[in-house]
Amino acid sequence: MKVLVANLGSTSFKYRLFDMTDERVLARGGVERIGSPESKCFVEVAGKREDMTIAAKDHAVAVRLCLQQLVDKQCLKSPKDLTAIGFKAVHAQGVSGVQRVDERVLGAMEAYNDVAPAHNPMYVNAMRLLARDLPEIPLVAAFETGFHETISPAEKLYAIPTEWAEKVGVKKWGFHGASHRYIGWRASQLLKDPEAKIISCHLGGSSSLCAIKAGQSQACSLGMSPQSGLPHNNRVGEFDVFALPALLRQTGKSLEQILDDLANKSGLLGISGFNDLRDIEQGAAKGEAKAQLALDVFVASVRHYLGAYLVLLGGADAIVFTGGIGENSVVMRQAVCRDLEWFGIRLDAAKNATAKGEARLDAADSRVQVWIMPTNEELIVARQTKDLLG
Amino acid sequence: MKVLVANLGSTSFKYRLFDMTDERVLARGGVERIGSPESKCFVEVAGKREDMTIAAKDHAVAVRLCLQQLVDKQCLKSPKDLTAIGFKAVHAQGVSGVQRVDERVLGAMEAYNDVAPAHNPMYVNAMRLLARDLPEIPLVAAFETGFHETISPAEKLYAIPTEWAEKVGVKKWGFHGASHRYIGWRASQLLKDPEAKIISCHLGGSSSLCAIKAGQSQACSLGMSPQSGLPHNNRVGEFDVFALPALLRQTGKSLEQILDDLANKSGLLGISGFNDLRDIEQGAAKGEAKAQLALDVFVASVRHYLGAYLVLLGGADAIVFTGGIGENSVVMRQAVCRDLEWFGIRLDAAKNATAKGEARLDAADSRVQVWIMPTNEELIVARQTKDLLG
Repeated sequence: MKVLVANLGSTSFKYRLFDMTDERVLARGGVERIGSPESKCFVEVAGKREDMTIAAKDHAVAVRLCLQQLVDKQCLKSPKDLTAIGFKAVHAQGVSGVQRVDERVLGAMEAYNDVAPAHNPMYVNAMRLLARDLPEIPLVAAFETGFHETISPAEKLYAIPTEWAEKVGVKKWGFHGASHRYIGWRASQLLKDPEAKIISCHLGGSSSLCAIKAGQSQACSLGMSPQSGLPHNNRVGEFDVFALPALLRQTGKSLEQILDDLANKSGLLGISGFNDLRDIEQGAAKGEAKAQLALDVFVASVRHYLGAYLVLLGGADAIVFTGGIGENSVVMRQAVCRDLEWFGIRLDAAKNATAKGEARLDAADSRVQVWIMPTNEELIVARQTKDLLG
Repeated sequence: MKVLVANLGSTSFKYRLFDMTDERVLARGGVERIGSPESKCFVEVAGKREDMTIAAKDHAVAVRLCLQQLVDKQCLKSPKDLTAIGFKAVHAQGVSGVQRVDERVLGAMEAYNDVAPAHNPMYVNAMRLLARDLPEIPLVAAFETGFHETISPAEKLYAIPTEWAEKVGVKKWGFHGASHRYIGWRASQLLKDPEAKIISCHLGGSSSLCAIKAGQSQACSLGMSPQSGLPHNNRVGEFDVFALPALLRQTGKSLEQILDDLANKSGLLGISGFNDLRDIEQGAAKGEAKAQLALDVFVASVRHYLGAYLVLLGGADAIVFTGGIGENSVVMRQAVCRDLEWFGIRLDAAKNATAKGEARLDAADSRVQVWIMPTNEELIVARQTKDLLG
């Protein structure tokens, strides 16, 4: 069974092709600048990468061209050799888990277009186009909220009128499900403990912490929308809705404009002026006060949830760093783990400074393991797609 | 120096009269149903309480009547014997700390009328009336945000455009300052450690946790408004602003109506249908599912901040319960402290079940002290009033 896992951007399409008999990656590739006259395209098979320029007026054309390349490279016998395309979908009203993409699912995603404005409109457009133009290929949406279905009502509910939760779906859904599910699974393997208590720290362009016990999500820092919880690169994170009346009155902006600012001009960008945490770290290293402040706010927020989840789980067996920042930022991991002696949590500074890939970072006498684990969201989506269709 | 500390309700006025030479309470009293033809009134001196019915058309008349009673009881030589009336004020734009009440302060409070809709409009009305009708008595506002001025920017800032913090004051201000300040002071005394790390849990009709080190606030669960953080009796607590578009569209309500629901029909009331945590506890004890759910959400939220503040402080010397629920609910304290063995935090169930007043609840082998401490916000306001005028 061959499954293509697609990562959709507004003008891009990246993929990995899995052979699900042994979970091997047969190929990876992608197309950028979809819709412009010249789209850059690449395909990589067995470590050999080939780059070219193509014309792809929309996502459907781009996907067709990629499938033909995979046939040419003998990764597929024909496009029909593909069992399905799996997508990491974000949010839909009344729909979660793993779903065949149909009008019901697309409509449910559209209903939350302004709850997840950076994700849903673009996903719905591209998926609807693919469903129309490639009707022979089953499309599967693996929702990020699915992993968090095990969260208890005590952690899932806002303290709001019951009907808002029941009818409008206003709950702490949680996101980054594919990443946290992978970390929960992989950490249990590496710790050789299927009951392990794990705090998964997915830190990147968007960030969240997840409390995991026995491979199941117990809580996630993301709530109703992908803009909540930790500060993200340009999305706000924690915010107080009762700041709105003063903001509306004193800025003269509309609610739509304020929400747009909270979704696009806030987060670490709002504090520092930089959109990328790597630039913020460089700025802070040079002594730029706003960059240092953004870093401090981010670290404080990560540590906030780290503490909350230590109590929620009644202690932890491992803290795992993943995502672009979690895997690569020595400074960030050091800052998150500082002054945790009271808990018996000790980072080995030398290991932290040099570790790459899957690696332990805790000192010999640490009570809790500390890890880097590169996440693998595509593998999770491929497995979920296989399970749905298998 | 004699200071009257006033607690204003929309139709009520309660007070304590302090002799600040030795911080003794000379009298307490109050008036209810201000504005109705018959207002109930009481005064208590040296343990002897006297109840009567008076006519008080507004707060100024009520205060004048109370002052005359205090003269009659020989607590004051004349109304002029009073140095000041001190108020626990909540929130004002660009104003915090302890302030003489004047038009500048009242205007700053009015600017945040809809940030603190349950508090500011009523306080402003009553204080303005008293300032006009009792011009001979200095009025002092001790803002609840004042204690939290020591919170670092990393904990105080939302990840929003910088100018929203600077110009509109959108920050995590924190409230319940008088209560947390008292607990920080009293706990340092009882622990005989001026550097003590304290987690103050003020649980009542409205609730917050505060991380305190060396008597100074390091973080508070309340943010920009008194509706944030933990769920309150009818105010929402944590919420995701990006639920608004879906709520506006699907309920047909206006933003003002949704905010009103979040400020008056949410919190524990929204989940359970009960406005008072005592009723919720009784309902849960009888097996009512919604009451149990409200209790579970509340406890989960208290434990969330407890964990966050353990990490923030790098451990704690004492966890202190105060406020109506914190001081009186055996069930709540038990639920908050359950399964903290990993941290070495152990409640003594027998002590917890029977303790009254200022009392230790931790087991002999607990690494962290656990206390009930009845709060004394009035004493703090009296001290602050004295310090300002002294």
